[in-house]
Amino acid sequence: MLDLVAPLVVENQSKIVLLSADGLGGLPHPGTGRSELETAQLPHLDALASRAACGLIRHVAPGITPGSGPGHLGLFGYDPLEFRVGRGVLEALGIEFDLRPGDVAARGNFCTVDGAGLITDRRAGRIGTDVCVRLTQRLRGIRLPGVEVFVEPVKDHRFVLVLRGPGLDGRLSETDPQALGKPPLPVRPLDPAAARTADIVNAFTDEARRRLADAAPANMVLLRGFDRLPGLPAFPDVFRLRAAAIAAYPMYRGLARLVGMEVLKTGATFADELATLRQHWESHDFFFLHYKDTDKAGEDGDFDAKVAALERLDACIPEIEALGPDVLVVTGDHATPSVLAGHGWQPVPVVLWSRYSGADTVAAFSERACASGSLGVLPAQHLMPLVMANALRLTKFGA
Amino acid sequence: MLDLVAPLVVENQSKIVLLSADGLGGLPHPGTGRSELETAQLPHLDALASRAACGLIRHVAPGITPGSGPGHLGLFGYDPLEFRVGRGVLEALGIEFDLRPGDVAARGNFCTVDGAGLITDRRAGRIGTDVCVRLTQRLRGIRLPGVEVFVEPVKDHRFVLVLRGPGLDGRLSETDPQALGKPPLPVRPLDPAAARTADIVNAFTDEARRRLADAAPANMVLLRGFDRLPGLPAFPDVFRLRAAAIAAYPMYRGLARLVGMEVLKTGATFADELATLRQHWESHDFFFLHYKDTDKAGEDGDFDAKVAALERLDACIPEIEALGPDVLVVTGDHATPSVLAGHGWQPVPVVLWSRYSGADTVAAFSERACASGSLGVLPAQHLMPLVMANALRLTKFGA
Repeated sequence: MLDLVAPLVVENQSKIVLLSADGLGGLPHPGTGRSELETAQLPHLDALASRAACGLIRHVAPGITPGSGPGHLGLFGYDPLEFRVGRGVLEALGIEFDLRPGDVAARGNFCTVDGAGLITDRRAGRIGTDVCVRLTQRLRGIRLPGVEVFVEPVKDHRFVLVLRGPGLDGRLSETDPQALGKPPLPVRPLDPAAARTADIVNAFTDEARRRLADAAPANMVLLRGFDRLPGLPAFPDVFRLRAAAIAAYPMYRGLARLVGMEVLKTGATFADELATLRQHWESHDFFFLHYKDTDKAGEDGDFDAKVAALERLDACIPEIEALGPDVLVVTGDHATPSVLAGHGWQPVPVVLWSRYSGADTVAAFSERACASGSLGVLPAQHLMPLVMANALRLTKFGA
Repeated sequence: MLDLVAPLVVENQSKIVLLSADGLGGLPHPGTGRSELETAQLPHLDALASRAACGLIRHVAPGITPGSGPGHLGLFGYDPLEFRVGRGVLEALGIEFDLRPGDVAARGNFCTVDGAGLITDRRAGRIGTDVCVRLTQRLRGIRLPGVEVFVEPVKDHRFVLVLRGPGLDGRLSETDPQALGKPPLPVRPLDPAAARTADIVNAFTDEARRRLADAAPANMVLLRGFDRLPGLPAFPDVFRLRAAAIAAYPMYRGLARLVGMEVLKTGATFADELATLRQHWESHDFFFLHYKDTDKAGEDGDFDAKVAALERLDACIPEIEALGPDVLVVTGDHATPSVLAGHGWQPVPVVLWSRYSGADTVAAFSERACASGSLGVLPAQHLMPLVMANALRLTKFGA
């Protein structure tokens, strides 16, 4: 798709806003039969849907639940099955760690183990970030032969491990058994070339266990998402857009930086993000705007909180429209149905408005309504070509 | 797709009509919210849609605007991303030029340049065909080492350049800078093997500049779409159909000839085309019938003219039905929304009738109505297998 689109790109003055409401899609409440989107009062999103093209985005494949990485890469135009990025890399980029080609990064969690070494809390009681900072200091002191070791706090119980040195390979299994009552697993090489790196990581976790022995509830670590920086074609080069990312959360800033977007400095709230959008309206053509609250509520299994998060988002739509974007897209990186209390595999509603989008028969922004929209069920990586077409930024293919 | 279908083909006496209304699809009028198809009175097409299978055809990929070449190749069953054909080849075939394997053909435009050599009109004020004929005579006299040079008038400001000789290669950039106030560009080889051909073309344009110096407004040429004849599997062989093309415009005759259809002699109007259809009804199985007016009106940005063109087409549907085709398909090669005044990326309505097509819930022939049809959104190259199946010309796959 990128190879098809890139040679067709032309530049113009149009402005594009891609609003990703994290974990947007949901499922019906067992009591009412209505999903979070169908329960919320969304006058502005419904009005937008009425005059725009709607559909559902499938981020990876039927039945496949996307992580935030593949979910957003798809929205940015990259086939998530072709371009794979480990969670460790994303976490490292999200804290603005200077990750270099060849580094192996992993996402770390502090966890709680009992006297027998069995996991009793996979998130160490969600310790505060201050505790996380203090404990990562201990782990930084770990010395391993032939590599530099970086241990950087992220938030709550999360940290990043980066190994730097020659010949490292990120094709490793994770140490998290994804269940309580089991011990952390040793990492296994998923390719023979990663055998030495596996030994190094296992030496790290052994030493971490010793150094954290007295630090309960954060007395052990879990590591996953080992990977190296992938070679992605840069978004601003492929689409010839001055692309900006506005996201309060490090993960999404990291993802945007990974594809070469300029990550704008912003505050902690969506109101801050909107202020940043207004400030930079003239200097950029494309804005990736990230809204986190929908996902957070869904992950918590809090149906009503997700409804409220959707209604808060809806109230902000006029502020975005007031800027006069030429193309406005509202969608999400994956579903986070409250009844699942986690990411879901369901395709996610999308509304795409431009002067040339046409309106279909959809008059409400919900999973069910968008299923009959003119965009159909759209692989995520097909969204950007449509966005570019609607911005009149693509010439025709063939004579 | 062709490899899958060809071994399944069986022959019978059925008659198939594929009516391509060029640039068929549109977009809502900003004033009324209704598209050209939704505005036009189309009693016959609506009735056909009511008793047939409907859907939308996507010719290339989401967001990608098809040129007429890829648009029609898709309707003929060829994946337009797999089979790419340069505009020069199509133009040459469209004037019945005897293009031979190895020839390099380009589409030429006469243009206007000012005293500094900068382009002031990319179409030379759309000079008449008579002027074009006279000026191509001048260019035919150009002699270049090692190649034969053919310069053939097409229509208005358009001509075809064909180079014939050993070792030519069509992988060349175009000379049209696609903007006013710039000079025509020299062609660049897009592959090292095309370096000598680039030199030859640049020598041609230098000499053309000299020979046209006194011929303002047609005092320079622009060249694009360089290519050689591609090796396409022949339509009559793949589908085992006695296939005829009926098209008043050279481009579409050229396309039909490219895939090996017999191009029937016809007149300048659609009434002439219908007369040709009647005359040849017994001698062929498959008729590609082309209607140009829809595209012309859309390209002119004339909403009302496009509505009128659709209504004229609708009035002809009974004449086609009276012949008793076993399969009747009405669709287009791409959208040409009046509001875009050019080709669009939007999928295009299709209606497919046979005794075995089934009827879906669609009762109107429009973009919005067909979006909920039983054919769904169909890649163009999937249409011919469906047509063949409806003609009972395919056996089953597997025992």
